[in-house]
Amino acid sequence: MQPPATAFSGAFRQELERLLRLRRDVRRFRTDPVPAELLERCLASFSLAPSVGLSEPWRIVRVESPAARAGALANFEAANAKALAGYSGEKAAIYARLKLSGMREAPVQLAVFCDEATPKGAGLGAATMPETRRYSVVAAITQFWLVTRAEGLGLGWVSILDPERLSADLEVPASWRLVAYLCLGWPEEELETPELERAGWERRDPAPELVVR
Amino acid sequence: MQPPATAFSGAFRQELERLLRLRRDVRRFRTDPVPAELLERCLASFSLAPSVGLSEPWRIVRVESPAARAGALANFEAANAKALAGYSGEKAAIYARLKLSGMREAPVQLAVFCDEATPKGAGLGAATMPETRRYSVVAAITQFWLVTRAEGLGLGWVSILDPERLSADLEVPASWRLVAYLCLGWPEEELETPELERAGWERRDPAPELVVR
Repeated sequence: MQPPATAFSGAFRQELERLLRLRRDVRRFRTDPVPAELLERCLASFSLAPSVGLSEPWRIVRVESPAARAGALANFEAANAKALAGYSGEKAAIYARLKLSGMREAPVQLAVFCDEATPKGAGLGAATMPETRRYSVVAAITQFWLVTRAEGLGLGWVSILDPERLSADLEVPASWRLVAYLCLGWPEEELETPELERAGWERRDPAPELVVR
Repeated sequence: MQPPATAFSGAFRQELERLLRLRRDVRRFRTDPVPAELLERCLASFSLAPSVGLSEPWRIVRVESPAARAGALANFEAANAKALAGYSGEKAAIYARLKLSGMREAPVQLAVFCDEATPKGAGLGAATMPETRRYSVVAAITQFWLVTRAEGLGLGWVSILDPERLSADLEVPASWRLVAYLCLGWPEEELETPELERAGWERRDPAPELVVR
């Protein structure tokens, strides 16, 4: 029999669980910069992510200029106002009080795309479920989220955006599809409970129950 | 100023990087069972995953009966034969040699779905980009992948499947959309290099370069 794969130590597994517990969607950032070397080190985790057919379809735009930031913020604000208009009563009141992005403060902002037309991987695994290319980008973002949190950084994923408008504003190739707009920086506070739970919007369930077939 | 969030130790961060390096898409499994308590512990990581609007849209079906397993395997084999027919020359020769699923051996097989119609989260964050519900399921799977690997288990994600056929065969609700078919068990070997790279199908790139706007 082959030797079994390495299990990691119990102490490591406990710290990994603590990392998962402390990983939050952060919207409240201090404005101090993130050192370039630290950002680079965290971004290197992308190349360790799983991707369908080894297609590595992630493409990352750093949104940096005042004009690009203003465009993204206006995009969010328009989508957020429209979303608020869709709620009424108590839900609308809670929604209006929520802080749903750190785009005014976060020192690093990244628009992460999937290149739907990459020849890399030669289509392996993506014939019946082409969305797995986008899913590969999500897996890479998830790992990046954990790696940045392990460094004490906070990450927030903004999805209240018109993705086509953002893609046009950022002048990305037509084959790139927006997967996420990420805010990154030093979080103002450390929390174990999601902000949406603390605000009374929604509560987390315990572990999922399996259906058996 | 608020106290900064906890940074994890350098030793932990090194182990986390080792975990990312050793996380593989596994297709070669030993047939020994996975203890029920261990599987349950790993599945608990789903409830620590990020989800848009706290919608927690993941739904998990354990594919267990011989009939359900046979249906899923036939589904994969048909999709895989069709995919092979789309390649020619050397690519076809390599593809034909690849082992692309561990569905004959893996002791645990999970079909993971997204409930597109869940009322949970009241649609927050999913108005402009409803695909973020599916992305939440992918994030949960990615964390589960790391947690299982930390326990010495291997996980393989099969996407060479007709998702509608599988959903029908497993008789899941119409609002559930297949995100992944996962094989889980004890891996035959421990590898740092993806099987597709070793087989000469594709190579990994170094860390992604940022486009700046």
